[in-house]
Amino acid sequence: MSLQPDRVRDLKDSGRVEFTPDRRTVLKTGAALGALAGPMLVPSIAAAEEALSVPPWMKEQGHPILSPPYGVPSPFEKDVVRRYRELRATNTAATTFAPLQDMFGVITPNGLCFERHHGGVPMIDPGAHRLVVHGMVERPLVFTMDELMRFPSVSRIHFLECSGNTQNWKSVKTDATVQQTHGLLMCCEWTGVLVSTLLAETGLDPNAKWMLAEGADAAAMTRSIPLAKALDDAMVVYAQNGERLRPEQGYPVRLLLPGFEGNANVKWLRRLKIGDQPWQSREETSKYTDLMPDGTARQFTFVMEAKSVITRPSGGQRLTGGPGFYEISGLAWSGRGRIRQVEVSTDAGKTWQQAQLQEPVLSLALTRFRLPWRWNGGQAVLQSRAIDETGYVQPRRNELVDVRGVNSFYHYNAIQSWHVSPGGGVTADVA
Amino acid sequence: MSLQPDRVRDLKDSGRVEFTPDRRTVLKTGAALGALAGPMLVPSIAAAEEALSVPPWMKEQGHPILSPPYGVPSPFEKDVVRRYRELRATNTAATTFAPLQDMFGVITPNGLCFERHHGGVPMIDPGAHRLVVHGMVERPLVFTMDELMRFPSVSRIHFLECSGNTQNWKSVKTDATVQQTHGLLMCCEWTGVLVSTLLAETGLDPNAKWMLAEGADAAAMTRSIPLAKALDDAMVVYAQNGERLRPEQGYPVRLLLPGFEGNANVKWLRRLKIGDQPWQSREETSKYTDLMPDGTARQFTFVMEAKSVITRPSGGQRLTGGPGFYEISGLAWSGRGRIRQVEVSTDAGKTWQQAQLQEPVLSLALTRFRLPWRWNGGQAVLQSRAIDETGYVQPRRNELVDVRGVNSFYHYNAIQSWHVSPGGGVTADVA
Repeated sequence: MSLQPDRVRDLKDSGRVEFTPDRRTVLKTGAALGALAGPMLVPSIAAAEEALSVPPWMKEQGHPILSPPYGVPSPFEKDVVRRYRELRATNTAATTFAPLQDMFGVITPNGLCFERHHGGVPMIDPGAHRLVVHGMVERPLVFTMDELMRFPSVSRIHFLECSGNTQNWKSVKTDATVQQTHGLLMCCEWTGVLVSTLLAETGLDPNAKWMLAEGADAAAMTRSIPLAKALDDAMVVYAQNGERLRPEQGYPVRLLLPGFEGNANVKWLRRLKIGDQPWQSREETSKYTDLMPDGTARQFTFVMEAKSVITRPSGGQRLTGGPGFYEISGLAWSGRGRIRQVEVSTDAGKTWQQAQLQEPVLSLALTRFRLPWRWNGGQAVLQSRAIDETGYVQPRRNELVDVRGVNSFYHYNAIQSWHVSPGGGVTADVA
Repeated sequence: MSLQPDRVRDLKDSGRVEFTPDRRTVLKTGAALGALAGPMLVPSIAAAEEALSVPPWMKEQGHPILSPPYGVPSPFEKDVVRRYRELRATNTAATTFAPLQDMFGVITPNGLCFERHHGGVPMIDPGAHRLVVHGMVERPLVFTMDELMRFPSVSRIHFLECSGNTQNWKSVKTDATVQQTHGLLMCCEWTGVLVSTLLAETGLDPNAKWMLAEGADAAAMTRSIPLAKALDDAMVVYAQNGERLRPEQGYPVRLLLPGFEGNANVKWLRRLKIGDQPWQSREETSKYTDLMPDGTARQFTFVMEAKSVITRPSGGQRLTGGPGFYEISGLAWSGRGRIRQVEVSTDAGKTWQQAQLQEPVLSLALTRFRLPWRWNGGQAVLQSRAIDETGYVQPRRNELVDVRGVNSFYHYNAIQSWHVSPGGGVTADVA
């Protein structure tokens, strides 16, 4: 085979990095960096000799590989786990919260995704599981997992939040951690088949308007979903962050409704039934409605409105290094689309600064924000405020409560305040 | 507090979804979907009654939560694990491969990230670990992990590939799986401090040109890195996919050099030394160089050139459903930046079709590609070819070997071929 000379040179030299970089580049870059150094922490200058002494773990072979073949975290991170907030009558209808204060970036590792179960976690044999699509369709269909996974798939990064996340309606508990206040939140790369792809196979009755989703757990969790959402971006998901769903996330298959309240994203999905009106199931009448001050209830409040929280520093943490530089970091999200802006205040909302948003800012996904902060050692109240691409501004607590009252259980999305004491302790603030 | 009427209405109605969606929308969407249904698999229409019978796991409460508080995969996925390719003299200097054939999207879950260790996995106490930055700097600095984590951080999604990935230089093993041929590959969201941020604190000697990175493992893994790369996008990383690094990925801290060969991304990082020339360590003289046909060796070939591979269907898998629709899916990446295009052939490279790229296409990250395919039941040879934003085209095997010979061990990035037999079996093809 004869190759173009260019092609040969490409393959011959490819990957190589120049031995001696241009000196001017180094100097210019160095100078630019110097300008950034001002506001930063300068760590103690210890004797390099002592720090460079050979530690014990360099004097013997480390742990062999393949033990175990599926990796686990360091034993030094054993406290970074999901936790209960409170004991309930049964541990099959309960909730665990993600340790947001010890988490980074926007991807939630599968082992730390929050849980909310109504009848425990069913251990489903994927070979025996079926997904049925029926009701007001032209031809009902039954899918095995193998059949489902042959369909054209998509992978998308989306957040998922329980609508019961953040129980600050009646009062703010000052001893709460961010794990307790905001831990019913995750963001994963989900892989599955668009519901619209499946409905293109079944066909639709022209009068179809709603879709029922039912789970194969002991609670037979059941929700009515507007067909417009099903046809828009709803997914039947079989994988999460690169591997098959975890049992507690709906293995072998769940519904994903980007931006909708967690409960509607039915796990262990066994059927989708198409109809012309909602089914008025327990989870959309007795539960997952919002009681207003005038006695009426808001129903079908699916969309999670814009919200944010500072995860570091947050309740229960301590600024251990004394006055000086700290990075304020947190998460923002909106069920309406992209986060446009996050503002951070260190004086209880008197003044606001624009935080830096981690790229890429994705629609219906968590967005990490960061702000450099020089703590003067005095009292401070830290707040964050999200603004989404529709212009919706995350409300203050009093704005939200003025309109909604305090009898709601779901959809609390007001600004969270963290109080920093002169000693460096951080607690939830009632502001 | 008095609120604007708009603000009140916003908070009162927010989250609610209209009860009765516009009928024209439903009909229009339905019609559009119908047009897509043509080329797709139609699963068997089984009796909905049978599929809807209540399975055993709906008749009893499921597993309680908090067992365990850190989640693990379903027992039905026990074979989706990292694996050895071959036994070596010691299992502390060895390699495990990720099960790409059973993975989805672009994020690699932490439990399945490939491993390459030279002296086993040290179990490092993060409280005792130190990172030293010294050499040709204005002031050497020693960082504890707490100090390091107070610095301004960034989170970025990047791939990491061992330069020894894909040992097809001398011959192609036809019984190989994609786990064996391409499993030294991962893509994670990494969080850490830019090396440029640390060097802004230490200052740089104007003659500085190189940086030594040393690991705190029993092998004291040591590599020389061009300072230009260190000042560009190199990171000192402490978290991976939302949680602290796993022990086998360098806990508590590693170097990340986006787009550079895996080995240079030194794990368990204990020091960065600045100098004016490379140190010529074992891993850049005896190893991690490329022996050319003329007897010379390419050295400092850091950049991983554009590459791709079809992960499904791939070696050892079987098209179980007979002729019909299958989705071809795989991964593409380049150490030079973004993937611009991936082409897929089902006839051994005679004709090519453009695959769909999963959004967002990120620089120096894995990109998932997908192509719908209707298998006619005959013989087929599946190939994928990546083109990156620089215009570099992934070479065929003969193009690469014509230029580089067969004595290299590293940087094999040629097109991978999978042979589909009329029975549906898939094997690696020598093409």
